Amino acid sequence: MSGNTIGVLFRVTTWGESHGPAVGAVIDGCPPRLDLSAAEIQDELDRRRPGGLLSASPRREADRVEILSGVFEGRTTGTPISLMIRNSDAEGAAYENLRALFRPGHGDFSYQAKYGIRDHRGGGRASGRETAGRVAAGAIARKIIAEAGIDLFAFTRELGGITVGPISAATAPSSPLCCPDPEAEQRMLKRLEEARTAGDTLGGIVEIVVRGCPPGLGEPVFSKIDADLAGALMGIGTVKGVEIGAGFAASRMTGSACNDPIGPEGFRTNHAGGILAGITNGSEIVIRVACKPIPSITRPQETIDLQGRPAVVTIGGRHDVSVIPRIIPVCEAMVCIVLADHLLRQRAIDR
Amino acid sequence: MSGNTIGVLFRVTTWGESHGPAVGAVIDGCPPRLDLSAAEIQDELDRRRPGGLLSASPRREADRVEILSGVFEGRTTGTPISLMIRNSDAEGAAYENLRALFRPGHGDFSYQAKYGIRDHRGGGRASGRETAGRVAAGAIARKIIAEAGIDLFAFTRELGGITVGPISAATAPSSPLCCPDPEAEQRMLKRLEEARTAGDTLGGIVEIVVRGCPPGLGEPVFSKIDADLAGALMGIGTVKGVEIGAGFAASRMTGSACNDPIGPEGFRTNHAGGILAGITNGSEIVIRVACKPIPSITRPQETIDLQGRPAVVTIGGRHDVSVIPRIIPVCEAMVCIVLADHLLRQRAIDR
Amino acid sequence: MSGNTIGVLFRVTTWGESHGPAVGAVIDGCPPRLDLSAAEIQDELDRRRPGGLLSASPRREADRVEILSGVFEGRTTGTPISLMIRNSDAEGAAYENLRALFRPGHGDFSYQAKYGIRDHRGGGRASGRETAGRVAAGAIARKIIAEAGIDLFAFTRELGGITVGPISAATAPSSPLCCPDPEAEQRMLKRLEEARTAGDTLGGIVEIVVRGCPPGLGEPVFSKIDADLAGALMGIGTVKGVEIGAGFAASRMTGSACNDPIGPEGFRTNHAGGILAGITNGSEIVIRVACKPIPSITRPQETIDLQGRPAVVTIGGRHDVSVIPRIIPVCEAMVCIVLADHLLRQRAIDR
Amino acid sequence: MSGNTIGVLFRVTTWGESHGPAVGAVIDGCPPRLDLSAAEIQDELDRRRPGGLLSASPRREADRVEILSGVFEGRTTGTPISLMIRNSDAEGAAYENLRALFRPGHGDFSYQAKYGIRDHRGGGRASGRETAGRVAAGAIARKIIAEAGIDLFAFTRELGGITVGPISAATAPSSPLCCPDPEAEQRMLKRLEEARTAGDTLGGIVEIVVRGCPPGLGEPVFSKIDADLAGALMGIGTVKGVEIGAGFAASRMTGSACNDPIGPEGFRTNHAGGILAGITNGSEIVIRVACKPIPSITRPQETIDLQGRPAVVTIGGRHDVSVIPRIIPVCEAMVCIVLADHLLRQRAIDR
Repeated sequence: MSGNTIGVLFRVTTWGESHGPAVGAVIDGCPPRLDLSAAEIQDELDRRRPGGLLSASPRREADRVEILSGVFEGRTTGTPISLMIRNSDAEGAAYENLRALFRPGHGDFSYQAKYGIRDHRGGGRASGRETAGRVAAGAIARKIIAEAGIDLFAFTRELGGITVGPISAATAPSSPLCCPDPEAEQRMLKRLEEARTAGDTLGGIVEIVVRGCPPGLGEPVFSKIDADLAGALMGIGTVKGVEIGAGFAASRMTGSACNDPIGPEGFRTNHAGGILAGITNGSEIVIRVACKPIPSITRPQETIDLQGRPAVVTIGGRHDVSVIPRIIPVCEAMVCIVLADHLLRQRAIDR
Repeated sequence: MSGNTIGVLFRVTTWGESHGPAVGAVIDGCPPRLDLSAAEIQDELDRRRPGGLLSASPRREADRVEILSGVFEGRTTGTPISLMIRNSDAEGAAYENLRALFRPGHGDFSYQAKYGIRDHRGGGRASGRETAGRVAAGAIARKIIAEAGIDLFAFTRELGGITVGPISAATAPSSPLCCPDPEAEQRMLKRLEEARTAGDTLGGIVEIVVRGCPPGLGEPVFSKIDADLAGALMGIGTVKGVEIGAGFAASRMTGSACNDPIGPEGFRTNHAGGILAGITNGSEIVIRVACKPIPSITRPQETIDLQGRPAVVTIGGRHDVSVIPRIIPVCEAMVCIVLADHLLRQRAIDR
Repeated sequence: MSGNTIGVLFRVTTWGESHGPAVGAVIDGCPPRLDLSAAEIQDELDRRRPGGLLSASPRREADRVEILSGVFEGRTTGTPISLMIRNSDAEGAAYENLRALFRPGHGDFSYQAKYGIRDHRGGGRASGRETAGRVAAGAIARKIIAEAGIDLFAFTRELGGITVGPISAATAPSSPLCCPDPEAEQRMLKRLEEARTAGDTLGGIVEIVVRGCPPGLGEPVFSKIDADLAGALMGIGTVKGVEIGAGFAASRMTGSACNDPIGPEGFRTNHAGGILAGITNGSEIVIRVACKPIPSITRPQETIDLQGRPAVVTIGGRHDVSVIPRIIPVCEAMVCIVLADHLLRQRAIDR
Repeated sequence: MSGNTIGVLFRVTTWGESHGPAVGAVIDGCPPRLDLSAAEIQDELDRRRPGGLLSASPRREADRVEILSGVFEGRTTGTPISLMIRNSDAEGAAYENLRALFRPGHGDFSYQAKYGIRDHRGGGRASGRETAGRVAAGAIARKIIAEAGIDLFAFTRELGGITVGPISAATAPSSPLCCPDPEAEQRMLKRLEEARTAGDTLGGIVEIVVRGCPPGLGEPVFSKIDADLAGALMGIGTVKGVEIGAGFAASRMTGSACNDPIGPEGFRTNHAGGILAGITNGSEIVIRVACKPIPSITRPQETIDLQGRPAVVTIGGRHDVSVIPRIIPVCEAMVCIVLADHLLRQRAIDR
C-alpha cells in the first residue's frame, strides 16, 4: 500500500540507499515460534551478492545481515523483525560527476522531478542494492510458505534473445546463469562476453514456478493473487513486463484451446498458470518477467544536467552485463512475500 | 490493499454479484467541489454495456447508475460517493444447471475452493459485470486527472492474432472495435464472425496511452506507478499479461538501444513507456495488456462436479466472442483510478 | 485507516448523508458460510431508531435495510456485503435557514473549513444518521464474535449527572434507558423531562462490557485492542472521553492497589478492564464513554454566517434530549466491529 | 493499521525489544527537503531518557540515535528514514527469574497467551523502551507540523491525586515534573518520595495542548482527528483513559452550557477541545490522558507461572515511581505523528 511497505498481514518495509550507512527491512506480522537464524537469511542474500562467475560489479559487500529484533532464542516472537545490512563499501565520492547529470535509463530524472532532491550516489534508493532488504524478508516468507508445503524457484528462460529449449525443470538449476538448458546457457555466456566487450548490456526473461500451492489463495477483486504478483514483480527496477501462464500467447489462442479441462485428477493443462479469477486453483503457478538491459553502459550517452542543458554522461566503474542471474533471488523473494501474505489472509477466514 | 478496495487516498471499493440485486462502488477520498453528475458517469458505463455492433450478450441491462451520497447540488462534498446500478435483468434460474459444475477457464473452481460456497449465477462476484462499478469509479477518477491535464485512451492493438499496422494514434478511435487501423479492423471483424460460427472465442491485446502526465508520480519501492498499474490491470479478469513501454521486447534489446537519450526538449525515445524507476518521467505512459479468449464457449467441455466426478458442461445462452472492445473502458478506468490516487499522494508531499 | 473505512481484515466502509437518497455500509472480509438475513440486521437497527418512549425525534424512518450483495441463499459468500437504507423521510427544505449558518456544537463550521462545501441538511455526513450503517455492520460483526463465544452489551452508567448505584449487571437491561438501576432510572427520566421543558439537552456515560473474550486479541504497538477500541468509540460523534477498566480512577491509585493479582483461576480483580499491554487477558473488557449533551437545543444561540458575520441561530423541529439510549447500540456496534477484526487477525497467526 | 505501523501518509513503524540488540523506527512518507539532523532527534530522546531528578531507573542508556537512511547532506529525500538506537545496557540475565512468571499489571500474561512465546527480559516488546522509536519519529513529525505553524506541549495536570490549580500555561513547563503549578509540584514530589519509600508507585494525568492548528484536519468518519488521537494515546502502555476538551465533565453539562458560541473572532469557549465532528475547528486542541501507576512495585505479588501454578513474584532492581514526567515526550510524540499525518492528508485534497 504505502510506498515502501508491501502486504496486508505479512508486511515488509524496506529502507536504505545504495551509499547510505545501511539498507534493511522490517517484517511485521510474521507468525510466532518460527525457527529463524541469521544464517538462513544470509544464504538467500549470498545468492544475490555481486561476485559470481560473470559479475563485473566492483563492489564487494560482505552483506552480513543482522537481526535486530523479533527473534528470541532462535524463534520468532510475533513482533517486528528488523534486519540491517551495513553498506561497508560505500565510496560515494566516486559518483561526484553524476551529481548534476541524469543517467539515461535510470531513475535519476524521475526522482529529481518527484522530490526535488536525490541522493545521486549509486542510484540512491533506486539502486538494486535496495533489493537486499527484499531478499532478506523473502527468506522469512519462504519459511512460512514452506510450512504449508509451497515450494518455488525461478530460472533463466531467455537471455540476450537466446531462449532455452523445451524443458522439464524439476528443480531450480544451480548453473552459473540458473539456466536449465546447458547448451543454451553456453550461448548465453558467449553473448554476455560479446556484450561486455562492446561496452553494452543485455536483458532477458525469468520464469518463476510455484509448486504445492493450495487452491484458494487470492482475494477478489483488487487483491487477486495474479494482481498482487504482477504488482510485486513489476515493482522490481528492471522489470518491464509480467505474464501469467500462457500470458501474451493466450491473447492469440481460441477459448477452446485456452480453457484448461478439469478431470478428477485436476486441471489437465495449465494455460491459466495456476490462477483462475485471481485465485489459485492448485496447479503450478507459472510467471514470466521481462527484464530490460541494465542501463549502466560504458558508452557516452546524451543527457541533460540539472539546469536542463545538454550534456554527455559517461558511467565509470565496472557493472554487471545483465541483471540475470542476480535478479533471480529477488523475483523469488517477491513471490514468497506475496504468497506468505495471502496464506495468512486465507487462514483468517478458513472455517 | 484489501480484497475489494484499491487506492491509498483515492479509494475505490466495488461490491456486487452478477445476478444479485445490484452492483456498485463506494469512492472515498474524492476531492471536494468537483462538478459531478450521474450523466457523466453514465456515459462511461454506456461504453462497456452489452449491445454494441458485435455483442452477442443477450443481457440488456439498463445499467442506470444512481448517486446515493457524496454529491450535493451537483458538486462533490469530499465524503464517500456511493454508486449503485440495479441488476434489472437478473434471471438466475437460467444458471441452475451450473450450480454443481465448474466451468473451465472460469473462477468457479477456485471460488469454491476458497470460500466453500459460491453464487453460481453468471459467475457471481467473478462476473465481468463487477467491472461496472470500476468503470463508474473510473469516470470520477478521470475528472480528477483531467483537471491536472492528464488524458488517456485505450485501443485495440491486436485481436485474434491480427495486429494493427504502424499507427500514430492521436485520439481514441471510435470505430466498432476501437481499432486505429481500418484495414486490420475489417479482418478482425471477419475473424470474430468465424469464431462465433465455430462456437469459439478470441483474445487480443489492448494498448493504453496516457498523455500529459506530469513527471513525479509513483512511490518507491512497493507502490511504483508501474507496479500499481500492473497490479490494477492484471486484476481485470481477462488479463494474463501486462507490459510497459518496450515491455517484453526490452528483454531482447541491448542497453545502448533501450536507454532513452535525454535532450533539453525531453526524452528522445520512449522505450521506458514514460516510467523510470517506478516514477513517471513526463513522457507518454504506454501499457499493453494481453486478454485471454472468453472462456464461455458453446462447445461441450470436460469438467467435474462438486463431488469431483467427471462431467460435461455445456454453457447455454449467447455470449460475446471477445472481451474486446468492451474491456477497453475497464482498462481505462483502472489506469484513471491509479493515476488519480498517485496524483493526490504527490500533492501531499509537494512543497 | 482511511476516512470512512475501519478494520484490517473485517473492514467496514460507511457512506451517506442525513438527507441524501440513502445511507449504507459495505462490509468486506466477512468469513463465508455465515447464516445472515436482513431481519437480523434489522433487529439491531430498530434499537437505534427514533421513536422510543422518550424520543422527541420527529423523523420516522422505516429504516429498512436491504442486502444488495455478498449473501447467497441465506449465507455469506465471503464477498463484500453491501447494505443500504433509504432515507424515506428526507425533507431537506426544512433546513434551508441553516444553509449559511454554523450551529454551535455541530460540525458545520469544521466541515466547511475542511471541504469548502457542505450538505447543510440535517448535518449531512456528520449526522447521527450515518451510524445506521455502523449498526448494520455491527450486527454482522456480532455474529462473528458470537461464534467465538464473545458476548457484549452496553448500559447507561450515568445520565444528566445521575449515576447508577452499585450494580451487578448480568445482562443487557431492557428498560427504557437501558439502565440497570430502576430507582436511578426514574430520576434520569425526570431530569430528561425537566431538560426538555427548559429547551435544553443532557449528556451521560455509557458502559460497555464484553464477556467471553479469549486472551490474545490486540496487536502491539499501534493496533492494541484498547487503542483500536478507544479510536472506534471516540469516533462516535457524541463521545468526548473513553476509559478502560479503572480508567481515570487508575491515575489516582497506587501500583499495589491497581495491579490485578493473578491466581490459577484467573485475574482476581479487574482494574485493567481485561486488557494488558494492549492485548486481552481473558477478563471482562470494561469500557466507559462520555457522551456530551446533544448540541441541538431550542434556545437561540450566538454564531456566525458563511461570511463570518455575527448571527443568531435557532434550531427548529423537535430533537432528542439525550443521545442516551439511542447511542447504546452504536457503542456496541463499534466494539463488535473492532473485536471481529482482531479475532480474524489472530486466527491468521494462530499455529 | 497494522500492528506496528501508524499513519496513512506519514507512516511510523517501530521495532525492537527492551533487551534485544536495538530499538528503532522507520518513517515513511516524510516530505522531501526538510532539514534534519540526528542532533534534533537526540534532543527529544534525551527528554524521555532515564536519569532525571527523580528517576530511579538503574538503566543508563546512551540512547544515541543513528540515522541510517532517508537523509542526504542534511535534508530528507522523501525516502524512508530509518532510525536505530542501540541497547547498550541490555543485561538480560538479570531477568532470568521472570522467565516463567507473569508480573501483575504487565503484558507478560497477555503476550504469552497471544504468541505462545515471549521475550521476558524487561518486558520485551511491551517495554516502555519501545517508545524511544516513537519519540524519535515524533521529532520529525514535530518539524513537519511546525512548518505549518502548529506548536504543542504537554504538562502534568495531576500526580498521585494532587491536581494543579487554575493555570494559564502559556508555555511548556521546564520544571522537574513538567508541572505549571510550583506549589502543587512540591507536594507531588513529596508524595512521590513517600511512595518510593513504601515500595509503591503512582499514576497521574497528563494534558496536551496544541496551538496554531488550522481548522479542517481530520477525516470523517473513522479517521476523525479525535478518534486517531485517542487511539494513538490509548496505545501508550500506561494510558487507561483519554478525554478531549471538557471530556468526561461534558457528560454532566447541559447542551446550552457545553456548546461553544461562535463569534467573528472565533469560538468563545472551548468545551469542544478544538474538535467538532472529528475535524479541527481552529481552537486549541486540549487532551488529557490518565496514566496508571507503574506496575513494577517492589512488594511481593501473587501470580502464577507458565504452568498455571500459584507463585509469588518479586521484581528486583530499581524502577521509576511514576511514568510522569518521562511519559510526557511520548504523549507529545504521538500527537505530533497524528497531526503530521492528517496535515499531509489534508494537503492532498486542498484545492
